[in-house]
Amino acid sequence: MSENCITEISQKDDIMARPATDIEAGRAQLLDLVESLIEERGAMEITLAELAARAHMSPANIYRFFESKEALFEAIAERWFEPKIAIMDEVLASDLPIRERFYEFFARRFELMVAQQRENPMLFDSYCELGQQHFDIIRSYIDLGDHNLSVLIGEAKAEGYFPALSIDSALSHVNLMVHVFVNPKAVVLIQPTPTTAKLRAIVDAIFDGLGREAVADKGADAPVLRVVE
Amino acid sequence: MSENCITEISQKDDIMARPATDIEAGRAQLLDLVESLIEERGAMEITLAELAARAHMSPANIYRFFESKEALFEAIAERWFEPKIAIMDEVLASDLPIRERFYEFFARRFELMVAQQRENPMLFDSYCELGQQHFDIIRSYIDLGDHNLSVLIGEAKAEGYFPALSIDSALSHVNLMVHVFVNPKAVVLIQPTPTTAKLRAIVDAIFDGLGREAVADKGADAPVLRVVE
Repeated sequence: MSENCITEISQKDDIMARPATDIEAGRAQLLDLVESLIEERGAMEITLAELAARAHMSPANIYRFFESKEALFEAIAERWFEPKIAIMDEVLASDLPIRERFYEFFARRFELMVAQQRENPMLFDSYCELGQQHFDIIRSYIDLGDHNLSVLIGEAKAEGYFPALSIDSALSHVNLMVHVFVNPKAVVLIQPTPTTAKLRAIVDAIFDGLGREAVADKGADAPVLRVVE
Repeated sequence: MSENCITEISQKDDIMARPATDIEAGRAQLLDLVESLIEERGAMEITLAELAARAHMSPANIYRFFESKEALFEAIAERWFEPKIAIMDEVLASDLPIRERFYEFFARRFELMVAQQRENPMLFDSYCELGQQHFDIIRSYIDLGDHNLSVLIGEAKAEGYFPALSIDSALSHVNLMVHVFVNPKAVVLIQPTPTTAKLRAIVDAIFDGLGREAVADKGADAPVLRVVE
């Protein structure tokens, strides 16, 4: 998209009469510029004035697209999380067996992050850094992930998994066990690298071993004979 | 320990004739000074000249205790890991059931880190930072931890656990699953905080669910009736 295109849109006078899709298109183009700024300079603060200059737009005009720096960062976060939310929605809506949905819920987002990191390691790092700087904005996305995982855990419990744990408690345990597959910084730092094959075995360990009644009732080393799946 | 004491030891001429314990005592006192330097300034580089000045010692004398900056950092790391190594040795030598030793292997070191972090959060952070800066030195301690965990995994396999995984493969899976209890930075950053109660349930999930033949042979959702413990 050319910078002229943005300028043209933004210089129309009657902003309220403009279709919302025009505003959306302008925002999307500005977010492309933001990405190139992040790519050039890392996770330093980006001001709206700076973004306006880059877009050949007057400082006043930029407010038509982002009313504050906060709104800009919310839009950056929204763009970052959009494909992850799409994955979660798809997995939740699918009719795969619960264990498989559990695996896909983590594996697909993990693979996305690995691909993003490989494609542009510096940019990926900068987004992680930005996320840490604006954790208040990220928080709601983490909560959404927890909410979705709780739904899956509830369905697993309905099928008899994690009988000794409440949904909240199972959520907390699972989050700890798969942390390295969810945390974007861990994707890069952990050696040897997490893989989806290992995630598969860990999801099996969660389903076959986490929060079993026998363990909770009789102690860790009680002998048990039962249908385990 | 007084600084004069160090000066006195270090100013003896016949260094080779001095008992090794005197050198050790001097090193321990110098490491106390290093800790106070780290506490004051964070994880910035500490030079031997600086340490000598703080110890009222001539720059030449300091080399009797630490022959290089590298040797100083090795000594700092040794002091940091000493209690962790003691815990691992104790757990490996104990005659607790294997699952219990597995739990203690992680729980005791985790509790130590939590206590250290609570006692002096800034100092704890600075040590983590120093560790990242000198990862070449830390690496051998991580390898030692992996070696010890491999011994435990070998014993667990001898009792029938993790039948579908090699020792190395089980090691890698377990490390991923307990990462947040081992990584000192995670101890602080992860919310909600990891606890030993959660570690207990995770160790149970590892023992009851990780690397079972049935899962490996028949796929994740095959129904199985067997003695599981």
